[in-house]
Amino acid sequence: MDKKKNISMAVIKRLPKYQRYLREMLNNDIDRISSKELSEKIGFTASQIRQDLNCFGDFGQQGYGYNVADLYKEICNILGLTKQYKTIIIGAGNIGQAIANYTNFQKMNFDLVGIFDTNPKLCGLKINDIEIRDIDLLGEFLKENNVDIAIICVPSRSAQGICDMVVKGGIKGIWNFAPIDLSIPKEVIVENVHLSESLLTLSCLMNGAI
Amino acid sequence: MDKKKNISMAVIKRLPKYQRYLREMLNNDIDRISSKELSEKIGFTASQIRQDLNCFGDFGQQGYGYNVADLYKEICNILGLTKQYKTIIIGAGNIGQAIANYTNFQKMNFDLVGIFDTNPKLCGLKINDIEIRDIDLLGEFLKENNVDIAIICVPSRSAQGICDMVVKGGIKGIWNFAPIDLSIPKEVIVENVHLSESLLTLSCLMNGAI
Repeated sequence: MDKKKNISMAVIKRLPKYQRYLREMLNNDIDRISSKELSEKIGFTASQIRQDLNCFGDFGQQGYGYNVADLYKEICNILGLTKQYKTIIIGAGNIGQAIANYTNFQKMNFDLVGIFDTNPKLCGLKINDIEIRDIDLLGEFLKENNVDIAIICVPSRSAQGICDMVVKGGIKGIWNFAPIDLSIPKEVIVENVHLSESLLTLSCLMNGAI
Repeated sequence: MDKKKNISMAVIKRLPKYQRYLREMLNNDIDRISSKELSEKIGFTASQIRQDLNCFGDFGQQGYGYNVADLYKEICNILGLTKQYKTIIIGAGNIGQAIANYTNFQKMNFDLVGIFDTNPKLCGLKINDIEIRDIDLLGEFLKENNVDIAIICVPSRSAQGICDMVVKGGIKGIWNFAPIDLSIPKEVIVENVHLSESLLTLSCLMNGAI
């Protein structure tokens, strides 16, 4: 088990992609695959794939390849997809609404249980059958519901304040769409989606200055 | 100049963050900063910062630090922010609408000139004063307008077809929100925002199995 503790962030970031490709293979009734074939599909080198998957146990068999169903199941396990997560969205603006409407996340066991905003015009409206509540009710809501993940979709000036509130309320993970780096205690996990940074990466690569 | 060609993707991915922090410093009238101070703000090590910024020229001066305005200007240059980009959004669903409504991108010189969808109920409606056009008009639109970037916000089953259309139409960059890996000619740049993968990274880290 100690081996597992040393998985790098780079490997972790690649796992969802393995999961996506393995799911497609299962849907296409492919039951085994070599690292070479997987490499052709997924775009990582065969040696990288062997190295990555080796981190989690002994899945490959020389001359046989990987058992797709077993490997898929184990990666889902590692990704925490066998669990159910209660999530709330804070900020029912453009991005918050888009996430709330994206039902695929519900299918992935991320159960949206609340949406919060400061805008009185939004409070009381429903997205996907979930009422938008006033942010003043957030503290109480967190006390009464065992929420796992807060999805922060507020402007950057409000994001740290909201973050402090949800951390105080016992949240274990934050999916942060606000374009700032949040200060959090180290037991809370943050995953950022910084859209502007992604767009700038695109323009940087298009620019050809480097 | 040859030195510039060898910048790794890891450095490129860090540049937007440097740009964001430097902009904040400029707004706060900070005109110079040492790599140590910058390190405390941005969270990279001072030696990493010196190494990163050294890739682009000789910005730091021993005992003086970095001139914030000069460094900001150069990073904006490298990121291609001195240029104007014509962008279109394909897919006016949740994410497409959120992006269309997010006016910050316009401020960053990404000029939204068209939105396309297949849904007849959406065609003719406007988001941010831009009419949603029928996807059948996309080819003609690309011929008549010199569009730089296509923002793909369609479901994964349609994404490769749309990608082929915009590539044929002369698009130079694709910002892809569809959860698939697009096949593209190597002269076209793709930057993916795979939201499900980001959410899975969060649950993986929360899961603690690794």
